[in-house]
Amino acid sequence: MKFNVEENGFSLSSQGKTILEHSPERPMIYVGKGEESLEMYRGNFDIEDYVIERYALKHAKIDQADSAVRVSFPNELELIIQITDGAAVMNIVLLNTEINRFWIRVAADADEKCYGCGEQMSYFNLRGRSFPLWTSEPGVGRDKTSLMTLKYDLESKGGGDYYNTNYPQPTFVSTKKYYLHIDTTAYCDFDFTHSAYHELQVWEVPKQIRIESAPSYLELAGKITELFGRQPELPDWIYNGAILGVQGGTERSFELVDRSIHHGIPVAGVWCQDWEGKLVTSFGLRLQWNWQWNKELYPNLPEKMKEYKEKGIRFLGYINPYLLEGTALYNEGKEKGYFATKEDGSDYLVDFGEFYCGVVDLTNPDAYEWYKNNIKRDLIEFGLDGWMADFGEYLPTDLKLSNGVSPMLEHNKWPVRWAQCNYEALEETGKLGEIVYFMRAGGAGIQKYCPLLWAGDQSVDFSMHDGLATVIVGALSAAMMGCGLHHSDIGGYTSIYDNLRTKELFLRWTEMAAFTPVMRTHEGNRPATNFQYYDDVETMEIFARLTKAHVELTPYIKELVKENAEKGIPVQRPLFMHYEEDENTYDIQTSYLFGPDMLVAPVYLEAQTSRELYLPEDEWIHLWTGKSYRGGIVTVETPIGYPAVFYRKESSRASLFESIGKNY
Amino acid sequence: MKFNVEENGFSLSSQGKTILEHSPERPMIYVGKGEESLEMYRGNFDIEDYVIERYALKHAKIDQADSAVRVSFPNELELIIQITDGAAVMNIVLLNTEINRFWIRVAADADEKCYGCGEQMSYFNLRGRSFPLWTSEPGVGRDKTSLMTLKYDLESKGGGDYYNTNYPQPTFVSTKKYYLHIDTTAYCDFDFTHSAYHELQVWEVPKQIRIESAPSYLELAGKITELFGRQPELPDWIYNGAILGVQGGTERSFELVDRSIHHGIPVAGVWCQDWEGKLVTSFGLRLQWNWQWNKELYPNLPEKMKEYKEKGIRFLGYINPYLLEGTALYNEGKEKGYFATKEDGSDYLVDFGEFYCGVVDLTNPDAYEWYKNNIKRDLIEFGLDGWMADFGEYLPTDLKLSNGVSPMLEHNKWPVRWAQCNYEALEETGKLGEIVYFMRAGGAGIQKYCPLLWAGDQSVDFSMHDGLATVIVGALSAAMMGCGLHHSDIGGYTSIYDNLRTKELFLRWTEMAAFTPVMRTHEGNRPATNFQYYDDVETMEIFARLTKAHVELTPYIKELVKENAEKGIPVQRPLFMHYEEDENTYDIQTSYLFGPDMLVAPVYLEAQTSRELYLPEDEWIHLWTGKSYRGGIVTVETPIGYPAVFYRKESSRASLFESIGKNY
Repeated sequence: MKFNVEENGFSLSSQGKTILEHSPERPMIYVGKGEESLEMYRGNFDIEDYVIERYALKHAKIDQADSAVRVSFPNELELIIQITDGAAVMNIVLLNTEINRFWIRVAADADEKCYGCGEQMSYFNLRGRSFPLWTSEPGVGRDKTSLMTLKYDLESKGGGDYYNTNYPQPTFVSTKKYYLHIDTTAYCDFDFTHSAYHELQVWEVPKQIRIESAPSYLELAGKITELFGRQPELPDWIYNGAILGVQGGTERSFELVDRSIHHGIPVAGVWCQDWEGKLVTSFGLRLQWNWQWNKELYPNLPEKMKEYKEKGIRFLGYINPYLLEGTALYNEGKEKGYFATKEDGSDYLVDFGEFYCGVVDLTNPDAYEWYKNNIKRDLIEFGLDGWMADFGEYLPTDLKLSNGVSPMLEHNKWPVRWAQCNYEALEETGKLGEIVYFMRAGGAGIQKYCPLLWAGDQSVDFSMHDGLATVIVGALSAAMMGCGLHHSDIGGYTSIYDNLRTKELFLRWTEMAAFTPVMRTHEGNRPATNFQYYDDVETMEIFARLTKAHVELTPYIKELVKENAEKGIPVQRPLFMHYEEDENTYDIQTSYLFGPDMLVAPVYLEAQTSRELYLPEDEWIHLWTGKSYRGGIVTVETPIGYPAVFYRKESSRASLFESIGKNY
Repeated sequence: MKFNVEENGFSLSSQGKTILEHSPERPMIYVGKGEESLEMYRGNFDIEDYVIERYALKHAKIDQADSAVRVSFPNELELIIQITDGAAVMNIVLLNTEINRFWIRVAADADEKCYGCGEQMSYFNLRGRSFPLWTSEPGVGRDKTSLMTLKYDLESKGGGDYYNTNYPQPTFVSTKKYYLHIDTTAYCDFDFTHSAYHELQVWEVPKQIRIESAPSYLELAGKITELFGRQPELPDWIYNGAILGVQGGTERSFELVDRSIHHGIPVAGVWCQDWEGKLVTSFGLRLQWNWQWNKELYPNLPEKMKEYKEKGIRFLGYINPYLLEGTALYNEGKEKGYFATKEDGSDYLVDFGEFYCGVVDLTNPDAYEWYKNNIKRDLIEFGLDGWMADFGEYLPTDLKLSNGVSPMLEHNKWPVRWAQCNYEALEETGKLGEIVYFMRAGGAGIQKYCPLLWAGDQSVDFSMHDGLATVIVGALSAAMMGCGLHHSDIGGYTSIYDNLRTKELFLRWTEMAAFTPVMRTHEGNRPATNFQYYDDVETMEIFARLTKAHVELTPYIKELVKENAEKGIPVQRPLFMHYEEDENTYDIQTSYLFGPDMLVAPVYLEAQTSRELYLPEDEWIHLWTGKSYRGGIVTVETPIGYPAVFYRKESSRASLFESIGKNY
């Protein structure tokens, strides 16, 4: 990177491209004061800011020495910038303590594209929009032009919008081939709407801003994961087949496993989210939030787990960092003072939708250890081989935490604390790489502590902002952040009003899931009225066929997962990661590379018999017909059960792919 | 008023109450730069501002001489404040021409209330909310918690919100007994959400800010209308009965007049909005926007007008400042270059909802004269005795005007230009006080040029944000601005989806209208499917009875109208205008004083058999029963046809009221 002192200002550039620039006429930094107001309703936030002052820092004093530069804005702040070939690390020293808002402009080109900001669900390329970064429920519908979203907004304040995500992160990757990360957990808003600059807003003066560049996106992925950590490999058992999301007690769950096996479905695990019991609410079935085996609903579970483990089928459960008022663990935690409280020290219960829970104060080392030990005892020692480590987004901003830090700064950190708690439970019991938990919430640093993301709660439909297509966007944007292992609820989760999962949706979702690292079903929030894979034989047969193809891909997938663990190169990749020269690849968010050798274009719309997609220049073989393609826009037939999947003819795995295409 | 120089700052106070205050710690003025973006769709605006800078002006230099003070903020701006007993007039000299955003904080008390900001429809007391001031369609539903509003937002971007109004004005009245007016036509946002100050935002540095105080609200009304002008008296013929809004041609319209007379309805006028012809759109019936007699639809109109005028019944028409593409007047205007154009000089047609019109450029003196002469020739000489002077809110912000001024500054001025054009047409033909036109659009200065407001296009329902109740709020807030003559479409106007006018709504609306200066019906946008007064005999009889009562009130109403013309005291008044000491009166927006001696509490909700209301301490006689009340919260029976109306026992008109109560 190159720092250039100019008349009245300076610039920072990499590979000939300007990243930062400052002059009194075009100031780089604005600072000021704001008064925020936030309201949370069931994980959905209404956030407003009253900006009292916002002014440019115009006149900089620059001192340069070796590889460090000090840029002083007298009485306001100082930047200490360490510059190396591939990086610029800017430490910020705050002088004016009245400042609580910070905006930095990053030089942009009109045709530049940007990616990341955590796991974004609606738009992969962030350019042209602004992205508030605050972990929350992602919303149901997520589209203010859809009546379903607006109705759900009215009834539950939960319709959401394009930027709502469980996993936001103040980091982006630019097509100028750098990433920029702001070291903060405060509320941010990254604004990519301007043509000449990106404006990044932070509700504090951040300690550090880090920019690293690389000659290629693959190398950049390595640098990002060097910073945030890398995910371990997945356990071997996960490649045995699908994880079946079933529930309703020992008998029903294992009967469904047997029925699935009977219909030829390879089963890697059975995931019972209600292993700890159930609650019924108007939204649908919810869980008994006391994370211990429920003997009434799951009699003989230990014996059954053992019996099926011997057949190669693991049992997975569920947990989250909240405890239902009145349950055994809640009572214990309350007695010990392990919950976050109101300002006056009294109980703070959070509404999760017709039931109320305590928030385990993960900033209290004793509470953290207690919760970790609960995981060790009630989940790991009990024998679970995995779980959904759900939630993490609901930290209210008006509670009191043990570490004395404002919840405004802890809110975005909470998913990482929650992930770390799970991670350490595994690490300390030697179970890393054997047990797997999967999360939807995230933040900067989640990379190291979360072995598997799942795409959260899609609606059971083909909508572009909350349906099947969002899973691809989620996988690709998380991939840019260094979270290279991603999967989703096959068939989606949320069914409200008359929006019901169809057989077609379930099968199209299965088609996609077969070409991701992990396949897992979910019955959704209203199992009885939504289509389930076991509802008809034809579905089970197609599901079995695609799961077998997935299992047969294991050698290839394991190689990718290993590459992710070692180099931080994600399993699902945007096309441009391997075809940097091809400008057509940069806006693609409905197809992806599954490793370097496979291109997957799921059918993401309803009632399609074919799929149009773009192939970068290469020799591509259509998986199911063996037909060869050279690149460009192509259309292939996509009857149910046959997604548009291609492999590179030159791949070292070509014969494996060829045999899968022939056999399934 | 008192200006006090203090250490590091100053304050301005009146009657012992602080109005303005400044110190470096509590700056009075913030300035900065913004980049707005506006989109208009059929008169509904989507307005956003990107505030690049906003900073406090902290250090003031104060020079005092006699009754004037100069407050300098070096390099930014100077205030030249003229101070007299009852007023402070602050002229602003801009030094830093980069500034295009201006915020001034006005000292507030926690329990202070504020009114005005033009004709507000949802909230009379402005405190606790922020009011963007930009003339526009008021919206259909106007309530983001109603599904109708949200649906209409989606389909037509026209759902609106609580602050949308045809008539905004950057002026408010405080219960500290002053008014504050900002002399600007730029976009404003008056923010009354803060407890210690009101923050008034202007999208320019305004030329002047004017504050006047008075010992009473009645005197303050006089001062406001001294500034903005006063409305002339209404013509005598208007007191003869109701104005019937009918349409569909000569035969149908006059047949309905005859039928009404036959059922005993006193008729002052017949108002045919389609006298110039019709268009059919999906919203409903629209008009042929070429403001000349349509001989096909209205054969023999001049003869009929003459015939009915002899019976004391006047004929009223309709006009607005736009012309439909391809009509005779449009073609003439286009040939003469009288329309506002695109930046490049090419035609600019505005979408009014499935039809497109030219915008007469009222800043072009020739175009203005031409349009005024059209009014003189085609309306006045033709023999109309009145008309609806509709619209004025649709000036797009991306067109080019003859005077070279930005449409951002002309937009809010347009309704006043349009009013003035009508006013001068009357004045120059000697018809002021004889012909009456009524407008929904307004702005500062409309007071002088608009002889009668109407409350715009309510929905045909009892909703609080777009139904009957909004007419009262509209009348009272306009009254605070000096527009003391107000009326409404009896029965409301807008019917969309399955929202249809009922007989009950029509009759409740009639009850209210009888106690306003003018009664006028409207068939609404979808006449065929909505209830009409002529739909049944019972309705016509009740309508006749209430219109007769209204006619009998003429001596009283004329006195009020005269008082409005002479002193600027509005006909419909908030209760506190006569009961300043009574704190309970300040938040009342569902009842009003009709002159000093009558208190009217319309039934504004559905399915009510009684009305609860507050009576200030006085001796009140219930109009229909003669029962006496002393004040406090009372409930009276309100069968259909009998609104809750009281008169002061001590009134000089008591015997008139008594006889009306007995006779009707």
